[in-house]
Amino acid sequence: MEKYDIIIVGGGPAGLTASIYAVRANMKTLVLDKLAPGGQIINTNEIANYTGFGTINGAELAIKMFEHSQEVGAEFDYKTVVAIEDHGNSKIVVCEEDDTRYEASAVIIATGTRPRRLGVPGEEAHAGAGVSWCAICDGAQYRGKDVVVIGGGNSAVEESIYLAGIVNRLTVVTMFDLTADPVACDKLRAMPNVDIYPYQDVLEFVGDAKIEGVRFKSTREDAVERLVKCDGVFEYIGLEPTAGFCANLGILNKMGCIETDSQMRTSCPGIFGAGDIIAKQLRQVATACGDGAVAAHNAASYVESLRK
Amino acid sequence: MEKYDIIIVGGGPAGLTASIYAVRANMKTLVLDKLAPGGQIINTNEIANYTGFGTINGAELAIKMFEHSQEVGAEFDYKTVVAIEDHGNSKIVVCEEDDTRYEASAVIIATGTRPRRLGVPGEEAHAGAGVSWCAICDGAQYRGKDVVVIGGGNSAVEESIYLAGIVNRLTVVTMFDLTADPVACDKLRAMPNVDIYPYQDVLEFVGDAKIEGVRFKSTREDAVERLVKCDGVFEYIGLEPTAGFCANLGILNKMGCIETDSQMRTSCPGIFGAGDIIAKQLRQVATACGDGAVAAHNAASYVESLRK
Repeated sequence: MEKYDIIIVGGGPAGLTASIYAVRANMKTLVLDKLAPGGQIINTNEIANYTGFGTINGAELAIKMFEHSQEVGAEFDYKTVVAIEDHGNSKIVVCEEDDTRYEASAVIIATGTRPRRLGVPGEEAHAGAGVSWCAICDGAQYRGKDVVVIGGGNSAVEESIYLAGIVNRLTVVTMFDLTADPVACDKLRAMPNVDIYPYQDVLEFVGDAKIEGVRFKSTREDAVERLVKCDGVFEYIGLEPTAGFCANLGILNKMGCIETDSQMRTSCPGIFGAGDIIAKQLRQVATACGDGAVAAHNAASYVESLRK
Repeated sequence: MEKYDIIIVGGGPAGLTASIYAVRANMKTLVLDKLAPGGQIINTNEIANYTGFGTINGAELAIKMFEHSQEVGAEFDYKTVVAIEDHGNSKIVVCEEDDTRYEASAVIIATGTRPRRLGVPGEEAHAGAGVSWCAICDGAQYRGKDVVVIGGGNSAVEESIYLAGIVNRLTVVTMFDLTADPVACDKLRAMPNVDIYPYQDVLEFVGDAKIEGVRFKSTREDAVERLVKCDGVFEYIGLEPTAGFCANLGILNKMGCIETDSQMRTSCPGIFGAGDIIAKQLRQVATACGDGAVAAHNAASYVESLRK
């Protein structure tokens, strides 16, 4: 079984940054990802807020980050991690393919999150180009235009307040009523350019090359069907956890996110978290990279501390 | 007096990232810097750990970040901030030049830190090329080579432990004895490739095109003078605070750094901190950019909350 100082699970911006810092700290470092590195940004059309790059295609940025990590000397393997066994100073990372196992002194989990999708017609076809999961990333594209937000929880309401300050008309469509903090709900309801439709089922996203509107239907007795025209849709119906494979370590919160301290340490010594998968406020490429640097720095210190 | 939503003091990676996020959140945004934007990276020869850029000259990265901010639409003015007056929902930023004043709803302070320098012959000539203030940034250049660390506090000792894992021979030269945490001092003393010279005055850095050694003299009665050959020097003799102008706000710690929470808020509502000037563990371009994103996101929410 091949032995590494640090294994990084997940090759998005957090994992790739962690790999650069780990290798430069003289750690023998392996990055595991089930797919080509890059994480969520591979599926993002335009990234306009990763400082220094102006506006760049997500896949292009992913390749630059991957090449950077390779130049530094990180090793890569393309496998799906299904378990991490904690044997104190040794961690065993178990992959699905051929029951491959790797050993490491420290593991950084940077598997990201995947926004939950509705699964309605027209959603997949416009994903990343008309349908977005990140107002802070893509909101600026809709200045003066009309958008629909799907969802009624804290993320949906907070991002709606943010978007309403940018766009012309904002329509919120949600399955139940708004369930966010009452103060935030009141603020959103009071905004002059916002319409809210609670108790709705989304039926489809209308439009061919570009999105043109959202069709939805009341779940109440009236069962009224509506079509709201728009230039873009933002979905906030939850995140799909990606760290279920490490539930045995006792480091996940109720949402399935990894709980860390400011040094990216979990409650399990030698296990670190970084990027979107950790419990935090803002999930951005810039914050993922910052996390990755901090996680690798502290993982390297941890590995050094075992050597004495 | 011109009024902005958000004024950012300092145009390094944290301030420039904050400006991108603030403008994209539809905030009227001004960046103030006494010099050309970029901060400390302007004086850094090679930056090899800002993910996606491989190895890039610091000044070149600074220009790319500045251009990115300008493309998005941030405004810039080149002035030295001497005071911030807190009038509740309005902050007045006072500049040295012509007593210029700007008003803002929120202020993000991202003025960075400047490492203190010894002021000995040969130091300035090799700054950023042989003399470094960041082991995590530049340590990998010295794999298998010999380096001298100047200083004996927590930063000096921790970075020495880090460097000793990379370099061939490490020599620590310090004015008093080691003053870091005893555990860290013991660990450093036990490392086989480390020599420690306490109670020394550094006299000069020797070498022309490249650094060749450090000359220092004992402050004890013997007054022995030594020349240790090396390929590079790392200085950890403290940071010069750059946020003294906002001491009146009561947001600085004893070291002169800004105390923030994880959302980059200070104890003064509407005043945020980001980047190297805040109290934190790891000061890197990647972490500065992450801070800037978080600070601007929360500053924009704060400004929105005043509008209701």
